[in-house]
Amino acid sequence: MTADHLSTTLQALADPTRRAILARLALGEATVTELAEPFDMSFPAVSKHLKVLERAGLIEQGREAQFRPRRLRPEPLRDVAGWLESYRRFWEQNLDRLDVYLKELQQAEKTGDDKGETK
Amino acid sequence: MTADHLSTTLQALADPTRRAILARLALGEATVTELAEPFDMSFPAVSKHLKVLERAGLIEQGREAQFRPRRLRPEPLRDVAGWLESYRRFWEQNLDRLDVYLKELQQAEKTGDDKGETK
Repeated sequence: MTADHLSTTLQALADPTRRAILARLALGEATVTELAEPFDMSFPAVSKHLKVLERAGLIEQGREAQFRPRRLRPEPLRDVAGWLESYRRFWEQNLDRLDVYLKELQQAEKTGDDKGETK
Repeated sequence: MTADHLSTTLQALADPTRRAILARLALGEATVTELAEPFDMSFPAVSKHLKVLERAGLIEQGREAQFRPRRLRPEPLRDVAGWLESYRRFWEQNLDRLDVYLKELQQAEKTGDDKGETK
């Protein structure tokens, strides 16, 4: 693991095949053969992706079974989520603004509907 | 923006200088000169990082001012957070297990403290 493990993690996640491998492992551990199957990829190509994920600490090999199935390690994902947390207020602010806009639209619509009515 | 914008975003974030630029922009918009200052980097080097962030939609240029300051765009970060959300149960499970372990430790300690006492 490098000093900048967050960069290593983000780099490992920046590939759709590697994210699909993680999604598969979220369902339970799997051997390299099982992981290779849905991707129509060669064993060495999958192994290369697995090495990147392993270096980032996103997966680990079980020791019990003969085929050493891989399993998910969530800790680096938690670290990414932790880093993102300080930016949450920015997208929530934007959603708040959208919310205000939608409420204004609804209000305008309602005022339109109510035209002429007195309550 | 490529079809796989999540990979583009993660790739853009996988660099400590680019994350530092985002952290600076989280404090408010800034010109390229202002962004270059703390990094002791050349203007072209910073511009290259800004281009990567801009391609990922993580920053945008203001149109008002002469120096077109950059500002943060949080939407791609929200998408990363959304992707991560389906993995949250994994790290929270792990924390739950740690919690159970700590409670067991405390219980064992308490039992030790209470030794001989009857309440």
